[in-house]
Amino acid sequence: MYELGVVYRNINRADRVAADQLARYGSATVHEAMGRVGLLKPYMRPIYSGARVSGTAVTVLLQPGDNWMMHVAAEQIQEGDIVVAAVTADCTDGYFGDLLATSFMARGARALVIDAGVRDVRDLTEMGFPVWSKAISSKGTIKATLGSVNIPVVCAGMIVQPGDVVVADDDGVVMVPAALAVRTAAAAAAREANEAEKRAKLASGVLGLDMYKMREPLAQAGLRYID
Amino acid sequence: MYELGVVYRNINRADRVAADQLARYGSATVHEAMGRVGLLKPYMRPIYSGARVSGTAVTVLLQPGDNWMMHVAAEQIQEGDIVVAAVTADCTDGYFGDLLATSFMARGARALVIDAGVRDVRDLTEMGFPVWSKAISSKGTIKATLGSVNIPVVCAGMIVQPGDVVVADDDGVVMVPAALAVRTAAAAAAREANEAEKRAKLASGVLGLDMYKMREPLAQAGLRYID
Amino acid sequence: MYELGVVYRNINRADRVAADQLARYGSATVHEAMGRVGLLKPYMRPIYSGARVSGTAVTVLLQPGDNWMMHVAAEQIQEGDIVVAAVTADCTDGYFGDLLATSFMARGARALVIDAGVRDVRDLTEMGFPVWSKAISSKGTIKATLGSVNIPVVCAGMIVQPGDVVVADDDGVVMVPAALAVRTAAAAAAREANEAEKRAKLASGVLGLDMYKMREPLAQAGLRYID
Amino acid sequence: MYELGVVYRNINRADRVAADQLARYGSATVHEAMGRVGLLKPYMRPIYSGARVSGTAVTVLLQPGDNWMMHVAAEQIQEGDIVVAAVTADCTDGYFGDLLATSFMARGARALVIDAGVRDVRDLTEMGFPVWSKAISSKGTIKATLGSVNIPVVCAGMIVQPGDVVVADDDGVVMVPAALAVRTAAAAAAREANEAEKRAKLASGVLGLDMYKMREPLAQAGLRYID
Amino acid sequence: MYELGVVYRNINRADRVAADQLARYGSATVHEAMGRVGLLKPYMRPIYSGARVSGTAVTVLLQPGDNWMMHVAAEQIQEGDIVVAAVTADCTDGYFGDLLATSFMARGARALVIDAGVRDVRDLTEMGFPVWSKAISSKGTIKATLGSVNIPVVCAGMIVQPGDVVVADDDGVVMVPAALAVRTAAAAAAREANEAEKRAKLASGVLGLDMYKMREPLAQAGLRYID
Amino acid sequence: MYELGVVYRNINRADRVAADQLARYGSATVHEAMGRVGLLKPYMRPIYSGARVSGTAVTVLLQPGDNWMMHVAAEQIQEGDIVVAAVTADCTDGYFGDLLATSFMARGARALVIDAGVRDVRDLTEMGFPVWSKAISSKGTIKATLGSVNIPVVCAGMIVQPGDVVVADDDGVVMVPAALAVRTAAAAAAREANEAEKRAKLASGVLGLDMYKMREPLAQAGLRYID
Repeated sequence: MYELGVVYRNINRADRVAADQLARYGSATVHEAMGRVGLLKPYMRPIYSGARVSGTAVTVLLQPGDNWMMHVAAEQIQEGDIVVAAVTADCTDGYFGDLLATSFMARGARALVIDAGVRDVRDLTEMGFPVWSKAISSKGTIKATLGSVNIPVVCAGMIVQPGDVVVADDDGVVMVPAALAVRTAAAAAAREANEAEKRAKLASGVLGLDMYKMREPLAQAGLRYID
Repeated sequence: MYELGVVYRNINRADRVAADQLARYGSATVHEAMGRVGLLKPYMRPIYSGARVSGTAVTVLLQPGDNWMMHVAAEQIQEGDIVVAAVTADCTDGYFGDLLATSFMARGARALVIDAGVRDVRDLTEMGFPVWSKAISSKGTIKATLGSVNIPVVCAGMIVQPGDVVVADDDGVVMVPAALAVRTAAAAAAREANEAEKRAKLASGVLGLDMYKMREPLAQAGLRYID
Repeated sequence: MYELGVVYRNINRADRVAADQLARYGSATVHEAMGRVGLLKPYMRPIYSGARVSGTAVTVLLQPGDNWMMHVAAEQIQEGDIVVAAVTADCTDGYFGDLLATSFMARGARALVIDAGVRDVRDLTEMGFPVWSKAISSKGTIKATLGSVNIPVVCAGMIVQPGDVVVADDDGVVMVPAALAVRTAAAAAAREANEAEKRAKLASGVLGLDMYKMREPLAQAGLRYID
Repeated sequence: MYELGVVYRNINRADRVAADQLARYGSATVHEAMGRVGLLKPYMRPIYSGARVSGTAVTVLLQPGDNWMMHVAAEQIQEGDIVVAAVTADCTDGYFGDLLATSFMARGARALVIDAGVRDVRDLTEMGFPVWSKAISSKGTIKATLGSVNIPVVCAGMIVQPGDVVVADDDGVVMVPAALAVRTAAAAAAREANEAEKRAKLASGVLGLDMYKMREPLAQAGLRYID
Repeated sequence: MYELGVVYRNINRADRVAADQLARYGSATVHEAMGRVGLLKPYMRPIYSGARVSGTAVTVLLQPGDNWMMHVAAEQIQEGDIVVAAVTADCTDGYFGDLLATSFMARGARALVIDAGVRDVRDLTEMGFPVWSKAISSKGTIKATLGSVNIPVVCAGMIVQPGDVVVADDDGVVMVPAALAVRTAAAAAAREANEAEKRAKLASGVLGLDMYKMREPLAQAGLRYID
Repeated sequence: MYELGVVYRNINRADRVAADQLARYGSATVHEAMGRVGLLKPYMRPIYSGARVSGTAVTVLLQPGDNWMMHVAAEQIQEGDIVVAAVTADCTDGYFGDLLATSFMARGARALVIDAGVRDVRDLTEMGFPVWSKAISSKGTIKATLGSVNIPVVCAGMIVQPGDVVVADDDGVVMVPAALAVRTAAAAAAREANEAEKRAKLASGVLGLDMYKMREPLAQAGLRYID
């Protein structure tokens, strides 16, 4: 259950170098590097293609149809943060547009991840401020009810702690707990280093069946070839 | 309940200047200018990004899997109209493609808003004829059953009267009743004039908390800051 | 019910010339040319706009969260094939990414149609390897359970036989049975030849009502015009 | 677009005898008797099985998460009415429970049709107050924002005018315009009279193919029997 | 792709004894007995609780909004059959009601499984004719377009061959290929015989951890207990 | 992010008296008594009507298609517990049936709340073991991959801590943090005491408009009555 009406000003942000570095590997590789956990549900989609970011989470809990706490959250943003917004009930309203984006960018935010809707997507695209959301909607919101900032929230099915690392790209959004950021960056780097060689082999026509030595386990599992 | 099998030839189109002007402000601003009403459901999406149009509605009621009335509607189109199509039951078939678009454009239509599917989206994109729809589908339709043209319809949850103004962009679609078009255009213009100054302040780092004087009402609502 | 754990190595691919030619007409025209059948459900969407392909189907049946059989399928690909992947239960995991795409391309595959998720969509877009899928997701898969290759499968609601022709573009995906490929290509060509003239007439302002001689049947169906 | 903040006290209720009588035929027969129109979308489901009611519509337009206008609507209820509630945005909150039902029943209401959620369904079932809704949810609502009472609304995709007849049962909900109530009751009665004989024939083993003389039109349409 | 306009009169029905016997075990046990395959998607729900049936499939392919072929199918029903209906596109219309049910029962049908909607559910419940469907809807259908009877169809994601065994209960619907009916009935019987003893042990407080000897494999997989 | 492969044996269960008492008030009243928070999403539905339970949460995190941890969870159940099951990805498989229910009941469990599917619902109904789930499905699961027991989980959008109180009935499921159980029980009791008097007034025809003194605030908000 959520604590309402509170703003935590001091959060433990993940290691900065690791937080910045994780964007390089992308959400799929980072998710694999953590042991295939941490993903938000795939209904979270970018408002434009090609963005790839990572940063530390400032969390905000919103009420349905009310974006008051987005302004409260803006003040808590530091350079390199990504705002992660959850709502206390399902809502597709457009909580965020070009004005809030201007403010978030001025504070140093890199992106917004919101389990609701956004608007002004053409402006946001021109500004180069990426958003991952579950909807796009012109529907406006009011400013009447308190939520919270920097409490643990559930965003698109995933628990997000303030300070965790957010990695987002065209494939989706993955959360890395602050305590695992450095280790995960190392694992992701190792994983990626490994891929270049594989790619070259596969491009030359070598089959995954041979490269990964799958023929024997497939036969043991009972696979039959029929001519 | 719908009246079937009728075509109203004389409709009261909204003021032309206002109808044309509203595109400039976009669906979100127009929706706010009307008091946050008039939006179609957010499942209505443009087939390509970046289009922003406004115009007067020619409405058409279609039967499931049958696009016969689209041809009847074509004749009722005047320069500056946008066709708004509803269906008597949920349907994602592709009611509209490049041939109908050619005809609609020749008649002066600016766009189509359809609570169903469209096809030939690559051609439509090249032709620059924007469509907002709930689906894209190759599924063809027949021409066998009567619907109606220029009756009030329900499109994506919203009542649309023929002659109303349609405003559509990447954020969605909003309807402005004909009688409110002039007043809404003025309100939208005022709203927008107001935004440039706000944007500059926010870009300079001023917080919405201060610009909108939210700190006191937030405190009164009980917001607590925790260090 | 599916036969599990088998790979059919010899399949009857549709006529190569017809299979290659069908891309030219697009999914909507081919679907009409077959008598309005053969479409996959419209939730199947391309990962990027503008691709239009046709080819012969290599089918693969996958288990939920398991992409082992994709590697088995790779070996069965021949130049001009399109892989069509079904899953034994609803799943949006990312079964396919840039490494498998590299391997598929090296084997001569033209595209993937998958009733599940894919990832690395930015890489796939840069590689120019088109995919039609029901989701995009970073979620990884394991390699533990057998499915089958080149059995008849149900993909997005449609039965697909290995060797059938797949036609896919921005409007969706349509399947042409191998035995009907030549005849369908001819019918599609005839259909398209017919469209250029219609397009010119409509562009000149002739109405579909007149071009298709609809006024009389509409009147007979009872359509009333009201001034 | 909706007119907000108004309550129309005088509405033209449909003919009482016809409004009461229509329940007898059920939603499917009434829908057929009107020419297959007037149905709300099938996501509207009864909270318990077996109820079958008809009555005159008192309409109410609600704001998301706010049931204030339900209390305003209560005062407008007369004996034999059914309240039809729409919301200005998608919402599944529980707008209605046993207290409001007690009040509605005391005023003479027969049922509620609501394009949102309800709660206290066990109590409502025991009270015998039927509700057709799109969701069941404990989620409470506030009382802060004006909607309207007895304006035309869109409920589950259908335009509802105050005073129209609502017919609802296990199969769904259908609206009959007030002006058509008497005629529709007569048509439904005729339709039903016709069914008893058909049922007896079919029960005795006569096929619909013969009873409806379908064999010839099926053959003409090209149906082939293969042994 | 479907063959349209044909009725196959001679189908190979599964062994009658096995087809009748499979109802006894229920859909979950039969599904397990086949190796966890054969299930229709779980959106298929019974119109009333408590029915459990099995029988041989008569398949019918319907067009959207058109139930003409249901009458054609009726003639092909034999004692002990279950009609399995697919539609060429997504549709929730009410294709089937009490009149058709009367006819189907007179022919010896035990149930209907339909990937669309039904109506008259109160009557069907009183008649004791069970239906598994994806929707309940008053929406009527027409009789204008040919489909087919007794061709292989895709129903709720599963290929169904005429003559296969259908097993349906509150848990869902499973298909057993005719050729596997006898073997599956034996496997299901063995499975069930095994369950009574397990149930008694578990009821007495024995844990599945011990009964199934899971403690060692769990430890080997790395499970840690923390006090 | 979830910790995998761990079982916490010692959890802080909420006050037993309060945990038992909360069932009496039902999910809607408890949700209101907490300030309108704590609800699981409304897609969680009971497998049969009329059950109303409360108890202390034993949490279990499952892998898609794998119910191994349900057996591990069984050992951690104490008298008065309710098992709350989350899955690491969306899944509708039938994780739970009559055998596990027999074991859970023998251990003293009162119910299961699972963000996935269950099966054997007829047996569970006869046994009187209530389940709230998002699906019913015959689809079986395997026992191959570790999850965890008694870690905080996200179930249907809500964070659940082991030991929290679960309150579930026909209206849905609400979670009460262990630390708030006593206070919430008192608030719910007060709320309910208050309702009997209100119900009597409303039944006698007093309007909520008068009982809640709404006429003045409605007028101030601008409500207009039109005759």
